[in-house]
Amino acid sequence: MRIGVFDSGLGGLTVLKSMLDLLPPADFVYLGDTARLPYGSKSAATIENYTEQNLKFLKSKNVDVMVIACNSASAYFLKTEFENTPVFTVIGPTAEAALLNTQNKKIGLLATRATVNSQAYQKKISELDSEAIVTAQASPLLVPFAEEGLIDDPLTNLISFRYVQTLLKENVECVILGCTHYPLLIHSLQKAVGDLPLIESGPALSYHMIRELNLSKSTEKKKSTVEIYTTDQLGHFQIWAEKILQPYTCDSWNLINL
Amino acid sequence: MRIGVFDSGLGGLTVLKSMLDLLPPADFVYLGDTARLPYGSKSAATIENYTEQNLKFLKSKNVDVMVIACNSASAYFLKTEFENTPVFTVIGPTAEAALLNTQNKKIGLLATRATVNSQAYQKKISELDSEAIVTAQASPLLVPFAEEGLIDDPLTNLISFRYVQTLLKENVECVILGCTHYPLLIHSLQKAVGDLPLIESGPALSYHMIRELNLSKSTEKKKSTVEIYTTDQLGHFQIWAEKILQPYTCDSWNLINL
Repeated sequence: MRIGVFDSGLGGLTVLKSMLDLLPPADFVYLGDTARLPYGSKSAATIENYTEQNLKFLKSKNVDVMVIACNSASAYFLKTEFENTPVFTVIGPTAEAALLNTQNKKIGLLATRATVNSQAYQKKISELDSEAIVTAQASPLLVPFAEEGLIDDPLTNLISFRYVQTLLKENVECVILGCTHYPLLIHSLQKAVGDLPLIESGPALSYHMIRELNLSKSTEKKKSTVEIYTTDQLGHFQIWAEKILQPYTCDSWNLINL
Repeated sequence: MRIGVFDSGLGGLTVLKSMLDLLPPADFVYLGDTARLPYGSKSAATIENYTEQNLKFLKSKNVDVMVIACNSASAYFLKTEFENTPVFTVIGPTAEAALLNTQNKKIGLLATRATVNSQAYQKKISELDSEAIVTAQASPLLVPFAEEGLIDDPLTNLISFRYVQTLLKENVECVILGCTHYPLLIHSLQKAVGDLPLIESGPALSYHMIRELNLSKSTEKKKSTVEIYTTDQLGHFQIWAEKILQPYTCDSWNLINL
């Protein structure tokens, strides 16, 4: 199976890493739209436009299935296919995983401004359970902190504590990391929320795909392959990508123009 | 005179504000490439590509002169015209202003990673005075802080103090704010550098244009006009733009696709 995945940049690699961990071996085509990142501070129309261009590119690589790893792009993509190819987004599976981690149905959401404003998580969760209450906090500075590699830095701790205050006041029982960059800051975020579970998109989406596509770990010893495409030059991106994907390695690195 | 100005986003409005303050009345066309911001973390090739598209757009608006307000874009534009229209960038005038503020010729530079890596300021200053020493510090988080409006916030103070340490250790005598966003954070930055002068691009460029173009305040009572174009929807941008440009107002707001 060939699986196409796109994200605005580095963050989606946390989702790709989960798929490499959990799915049967597959050939992955990953697109990071690094020339135009970040998406989360941009308008719905711009995000939809970029999403369509990215899906067209992945289609041109003959993939069987496509994944929108970016929460901001997922939030505005309400279909389940694109030009007859199935498309998975992170919202539904992540919302389901969050509900499994609550008793009183109080869920916290940290996400980009675009994702929060889209109300995508709020709508999906209320569709799954009309009694659930979502408290959302736009956390626009977490993406730049993650892109700068300020992992577990005192400043990252401070901004994390500030963002989660709104959620803690509402006694949420778990916190959705509603942006694929946020797992990169998990040390700071876990300190900020104490012992509350943090819900990540990567594993939630991977288990969802296994169920929906009837996948099972094959016994054959084939290894997954990973082709990476970016819209800006690699540099910084490649260094981080290699760290995030460890122990997996990439088979090719390519620069494209969208 | 019709003057075209572009920046990746909001920051260039600090330069437009200086031009409105200091230049004779003119008709300004301002382009903020908000769909693709920020530029300062992107590669030379991508920045050059966007710069060419932006200058083409401004040309299509029949401007007599063009200004690259964005330091990161200025750093990679080494010509003085584009398709026979004069182009001013911020690097030269800002470098000259910095040299006027030193005795021992020790200059500090805060800028985006793209601007620091281009060596544009370092080269220009050494061209103007081969004995001058520039200490540069890439400050990638200041743009997101400014775009989020965290003006004079404790977190902005902390990150500012961290960035200026390298410069203070070298006993610099002034600090170039080598990104048009940074004047928006001037309260925090001034606290961080104590009584050192902060050198802004806006006034430096305006005085340079007055000299180069032989401009003088005309006695006629014509008022400047300002047309604004952005590549992403206005929202947030318009609110901030109005604050930054006060007491001036804009004559039109337009969304375009580049």
